[in-house]
Amino acid sequence: MAPKKGILARLDAGEVVIGDGGFVFALEKRGYVKAGPWTPEATLEHPEAVRQLHREFLRSGSDVMQTFTFYASDDKLENRGNYVAQKFSGQKVNEAACDIAREVADEGDALVAGGVSQTPSYLSCKSEADVKAIFKKQLDVFVKKNVDFMIAEYFEHVEEAEWAVQVLKGSGKPVAATLCIGPTGDLNGVSPGDCAVKLVKAGAQIVGINCHFDPMTCLETMKLMKAGLEAAKLKAHLMVQPLAYHTPDCNHQGFIDLPEFPFGLEPRVLTRWDMHKYAREAYSLGIRYIGGCCGFEPYHIRAVAEELAPERGFLPPASEKHGSWGSGLEMHTKPWVRARARRDYWEKLAPASGRPFCSSMSHPDSWGVTKGHADLVQQKEATSEQQLKDLFQKQKENTSH
Amino acid sequence: MAPKKGILARLDAGEVVIGDGGFVFALEKRGYVKAGPWTPEATLEHPEAVRQLHREFLRSGSDVMQTFTFYASDDKLENRGNYVAQKFSGQKVNEAACDIAREVADEGDALVAGGVSQTPSYLSCKSEADVKAIFKKQLDVFVKKNVDFMIAEYFEHVEEAEWAVQVLKGSGKPVAATLCIGPTGDLNGVSPGDCAVKLVKAGAQIVGINCHFDPMTCLETMKLMKAGLEAAKLKAHLMVQPLAYHTPDCNHQGFIDLPEFPFGLEPRVLTRWDMHKYAREAYSLGIRYIGGCCGFEPYHIRAVAEELAPERGFLPPASEKHGSWGSGLEMHTKPWVRARARRDYWEKLAPASGRPFCSSMSHPDSWGVTKGHADLVQQKEATSEQQLKDLFQKQKENTSH
Amino acid sequence: MAPKKGILARLDAGEVVIGDGGFVFALEKRGYVKAGPWTPEATLEHPEAVRQLHREFLRSGSDVMQTFTFYASDDKLENRGNYVAQKFSGQKVNEAACDIAREVADEGDALVAGGVSQTPSYLSCKSEADVKAIFKKQLDVFVKKNVDFMIAEYFEHVEEAEWAVQVLKGSGKPVAATLCIGPTGDLNGVSPGDCAVKLVKAGAQIVGINCHFDPMTCLETMKLMKAGLEAAKLKAHLMVQPLAYHTPDCNHQGFIDLPEFPFGLEPRVLTRWDMHKYAREAYSLGIRYIGGCCGFEPYHIRAVAEELAPERGFLPPASEKHGSWGSGLEMHTKPWVRARARRDYWEKLAPASGRPFCSSMSHPDSWGVTKGHADLVQQKEATSEQQLKDLFQKQKENTSH
Amino acid sequence: MAPKKGILARLDAGEVVIGDGGFVFALEKRGYVKAGPWTPEATLEHPEAVRQLHREFLRSGSDVMQTFTFYASDDKLENRGNYVAQKFSGQKVNEAACDIAREVADEGDALVAGGVSQTPSYLSCKSEADVKAIFKKQLDVFVKKNVDFMIAEYFEHVEEAEWAVQVLKGSGKPVAATLCIGPTGDLNGVSPGDCAVKLVKAGAQIVGINCHFDPMTCLETMKLMKAGLEAAKLKAHLMVQPLAYHTPDCNHQGFIDLPEFPFGLEPRVLTRWDMHKYAREAYSLGIRYIGGCCGFEPYHIRAVAEELAPERGFLPPASEKHGSWGSGLEMHTKPWVRARARRDYWEKLAPASGRPFCSSMSHPDSWGVTKGHADLVQQKEATSEQQLKDLFQKQKENTSH
Repeated sequence: MAPKKGILARLDAGEVVIGDGGFVFALEKRGYVKAGPWTPEATLEHPEAVRQLHREFLRSGSDVMQTFTFYASDDKLENRGNYVAQKFSGQKVNEAACDIAREVADEGDALVAGGVSQTPSYLSCKSEADVKAIFKKQLDVFVKKNVDFMIAEYFEHVEEAEWAVQVLKGSGKPVAATLCIGPTGDLNGVSPGDCAVKLVKAGAQIVGINCHFDPMTCLETMKLMKAGLEAAKLKAHLMVQPLAYHTPDCNHQGFIDLPEFPFGLEPRVLTRWDMHKYAREAYSLGIRYIGGCCGFEPYHIRAVAEELAPERGFLPPASEKHGSWGSGLEMHTKPWVRARARRDYWEKLAPASGRPFCSSMSHPDSWGVTKGHADLVQQKEATSEQQLKDLFQKQKENTSH
Repeated sequence: MAPKKGILARLDAGEVVIGDGGFVFALEKRGYVKAGPWTPEATLEHPEAVRQLHREFLRSGSDVMQTFTFYASDDKLENRGNYVAQKFSGQKVNEAACDIAREVADEGDALVAGGVSQTPSYLSCKSEADVKAIFKKQLDVFVKKNVDFMIAEYFEHVEEAEWAVQVLKGSGKPVAATLCIGPTGDLNGVSPGDCAVKLVKAGAQIVGINCHFDPMTCLETMKLMKAGLEAAKLKAHLMVQPLAYHTPDCNHQGFIDLPEFPFGLEPRVLTRWDMHKYAREAYSLGIRYIGGCCGFEPYHIRAVAEELAPERGFLPPASEKHGSWGSGLEMHTKPWVRARARRDYWEKLAPASGRPFCSSMSHPDSWGVTKGHADLVQQKEATSEQQLKDLFQKQKENTSH
Repeated sequence: MAPKKGILARLDAGEVVIGDGGFVFALEKRGYVKAGPWTPEATLEHPEAVRQLHREFLRSGSDVMQTFTFYASDDKLENRGNYVAQKFSGQKVNEAACDIAREVADEGDALVAGGVSQTPSYLSCKSEADVKAIFKKQLDVFVKKNVDFMIAEYFEHVEEAEWAVQVLKGSGKPVAATLCIGPTGDLNGVSPGDCAVKLVKAGAQIVGINCHFDPMTCLETMKLMKAGLEAAKLKAHLMVQPLAYHTPDCNHQGFIDLPEFPFGLEPRVLTRWDMHKYAREAYSLGIRYIGGCCGFEPYHIRAVAEELAPERGFLPPASEKHGSWGSGLEMHTKPWVRARARRDYWEKLAPASGRPFCSSMSHPDSWGVTKGHADLVQQKEATSEQQLKDLFQKQKENTSH
Repeated sequence: MAPKKGILARLDAGEVVIGDGGFVFALEKRGYVKAGPWTPEATLEHPEAVRQLHREFLRSGSDVMQTFTFYASDDKLENRGNYVAQKFSGQKVNEAACDIAREVADEGDALVAGGVSQTPSYLSCKSEADVKAIFKKQLDVFVKKNVDFMIAEYFEHVEEAEWAVQVLKGSGKPVAATLCIGPTGDLNGVSPGDCAVKLVKAGAQIVGINCHFDPMTCLETMKLMKAGLEAAKLKAHLMVQPLAYHTPDCNHQGFIDLPEFPFGLEPRVLTRWDMHKYAREAYSLGIRYIGGCCGFEPYHIRAVAEELAPERGFLPPASEKHGSWGSGLEMHTKPWVRARARRDYWEKLAPASGRPFCSSMSHPDSWGVTKGHADLVQQKEATSEQQLKDLFQKQKENTSH
């Protein structure tokens, strides 16, 4: 087998690179990830489930298999009563993730990206050296397993992301870095434009946004990043991996503050047709690494691949079971459903919620606690009864409606 | 291994039997089933994907693995340009489905149910003998593969369901029969109460409702079925497998008539907390076979199993990754999310849609064509351009708003 | 001046008779009626305001000026701290109402209808004789002032309405009787069909529905009344005066139970185009006395008159300032507003609420207290602090969401 | 009678001055104003209706009676087929308006403000001299009738408003000037801050915003105006008279672009409780002239007066028929309605729309035509059939959903 074209070669050539979707949310619904800790021990406990999800994304058009190593740093795996660090160790989780990702990537032309994300240590005000040591430990696995490139993703503070990039650069592999911020900037108030500049200066060749906001909001933020880079006369590839949830009502913290997070987000899920708009708009902005995060299921990625099929020159394998813009409905038994086998129908549809007692927007929680606040500090022991009581009370006071 | 307790033994003992969820919708999103034909050739093309979904339902608490044989009758597999009958044959599809279901069922204490569903032949006004011959052909496979019991499901006309039951009874295996109708009755106007009576008289030991309507609507229909049986002094076990989509705005045809069917239903998906209410209400009505249909993902079935854990005496394996009523959130980093780790929070939440330009209800299509109408008749060749144009035009005329 | 054609002569001739709108709600917004007691002392305190509203309805097409005597029975005027009985007396309020109505009626071809409505005495389980005496006292004024006919309206219990009709018949004037009930019948569970029969048997020549529900719901109830009369082989003219508020979510008590009653109903107000649909549908059902109740403003009545102009042969005076189906917009400065000067535009418009944090439906209060319950009994003294506290507490317990 | 305290004396003393509400929308619903031309010939045709509305606002707490002279310039009164200029003349309309306003103002302590608004001549690119001549002609009436002060209101272009202020200053009377713009500035793109500065420099002592946007949006714009004045070290009194319609979805043109304008705005009407929030917020921003525009009915103004009663030291007369925060409900017959006689209930209520088939937000028309465009130019003859056809077609092309 000839070696695959690397990530930078693809992007330098102007190719579209399609990312994958959100593993923790998809696997939570399948029964393999626990909401709350959101840690990826499924790589060891149920590798077949992780492998299957990789395959579905590959089949849907993903060019990158991200190792399922979200929140797989040692400090996170032992946070608030989590058993994974002790039972398995972070190293084992990360290694298994690399093996699975590589296995599936090689079933197609996909690359493997090793991923690191923000740490409880940073929120607990640990030193730069301590935080960097955590990233280094994960990186050692990725180097050993020889992933194709690195992604530092899901950072709320650009400072921590810069530290991550600086560590990952040590591997000599290409580095992508994405923040989970909105148009108002990171949680310290650094603007998206400045964040992009900092990440590139730290060494990232690919920068952008992932998670926390819906596609249209993320693209707003991307515009600001792009403008920041242009103003600083810096060059970098752009990358975006948004939520598959509509979040018109979010504050700067993103969907975590929505009252529906994480167990009532269903009505916000984007349709495949929403994804067509997203993919087209992202492409038009000059973004070439286009993927998804929480809420993205394989069919969402397929929609991205179908929208960009003219540019890419091919459809993904899973389109065998689709037909663009609903054309598979031509085979439906009911004539009024066959009548929906056309782009015009789906493009104009404003889907009803089926929930007449629910509103269309929510007031997000806005507790205003951030890095360093006592409630955010890492603790190894489980949240106590009394801590929970205090939180429940606090919530009731903060919710005025 | 000791033989498993049969379906009737379980129900006779008053045990709760939890069904599985909807394969065609779940696998469509994963990239293995085509919306429109909705046929299950994935059993041959991608058995690992079918197997994985079975496993997720088993892990979530399902006591029954239904063979993935929906619409797997020969006439359906060659309808409107479908290639499956010719490439594989219905027999092969059905056999593979049985093998996969059995393999996973034996990883736990689950039973295998062979499933048949309504046929294009009936809609095309074929004779009773012709329609029965189709069911018999499928049944031969189920007998050969020795499934534990039979389900005749997804029938819009009780007459066709009676024919199916009569055929299935020939196997000597227990027979369940569910219609996809609402409180106004079947498409010929037979009331739910009369339908239930007819099914029992045809030989079904378990009767009920599946698909087409949301849980609360299905339970309304179940009440009418139950009352019909009581009035006729007939005894049967009750079974319900509704949609996981909210459908307050449906007409008698169910969700197929909603403008969002099948590619814009996302905002209607039930949350896990909606499922708790459903499971409790179904149990209170005396229904003991409680499962799901289209839209049900593994976490929906887990919610049913968690709600009925007190009655069942155990939690399903997948609850390791959940914690009842969101208690896993105790481990979340953000304190305002930890504050949501309680039943009270989720039980009262009315989730926003995040779609301020969308309404809460839709006007369903109501073309009023039914059995025998030219547009409904089976045809082997693909829908032609001209046929589509005519349908598109008809739709525009029927939609007045 | 030639004597005007009487109400029965008009209806017997098949003419459309257009009623007026709701005085208490309209005058509450103008500052002359107090929500809560809802009594009509404005006839004495601010006759010019009452006169002006009558004129606006006359100008909008009303053929009947109902005396503003809603809740003007002596027991109501002294209920729960109301000062009107003592300061003015019911007789004075009723007399002034008659004078104003007559003055304006004679500015056109309208008739004057004297109105009585349900009494606190009935809810407090007073005797038939006591309740009838209250109606008789009001009737004496109407006879003295020589109104053209009588309307007994806004009764929740058909029994009390029958008593009222029996009293009013004593005057020799035509009598109309309308209940404020929905399709499920009166608060004692008497069906709409039976209610209609009882009212006709009591002597009413015109029967129907007013208040409590939106037009489409009221028309549903009217269908049941009509069917009841036909089944009993009785003849009567039909009359309907619904709310101008959308109430798809009401229980049998109607809009009083909605959480928005009475100070948050704004988003439910019907547009003039909704009124066109209502008027057409009412006419098609064979109803010929078509008016409105709470929420109806003059422009709503004008819309009824405009929809039925082809049948009536003329437009109301206020149409000088309208133009059918928005044609007055032809004179608008902005071209995109001139583009809305057409029926098609307004007929299809589904108006947005502009309230993204609000739902489309509400859960009504359903306290289940009815005639005879302690909380409903009349009391002369104002509601005490303690009584209020108890009610506030009760409400919090009853509201589970 | 002692002379009344002037407008500047009141504002200089820090008093709250409460404006009135919107006459054209209120009188359109009462049958006296035609939507489209929106001209005030009712001052001659139906003076009693205009007088009554003035009285209701006075009774509700208004300190200012604005002459009903909106759009009463000669060029507007003959625009697009309007008959008023020819039948009556602008002078007569303006004179009658002054007489009515003065009559009612003297029934209380209110002042009379003469009002001028934007002209078709400006949109048709007439010269500064021509436009100023139009204002001068109206001003002559106001001087002759000796109004207490002048208001230049409803200007979309600050340039035209400056011209108006310059003319009005010639009278020696105090001048207020308000634009109908949002936070993005006037239709030429001049920012709110710059607009405020220009108006003050032109001679206005009171500046602010009226119409086109909902209260909260208008207050956003007011903040920008205030900041602009502070930056320029200019002093002026602040004034705001917003819509009583929720407009979260407006573009820079305001509610005229909403598809619901002007005949489908009902669901957007603010409740009285929304008005409490508005009044409090306006006061907190330092605004002391607080009133309303289109959609404001007397009860809305009463709510403003009730919210600011602590600051003003008195309640308006119409509060006799209200009771703050719904306390009048203590006298309601139904106990669950008495339970709503409290601030807490109404303050938290999120009213449902009762319209499950409608969305919460709309896509505004955005034709992008502005001053000078052919479709905007004044024409005396009525809009022709062909012109309408062209507009209808244009609209269909512009509406993509």
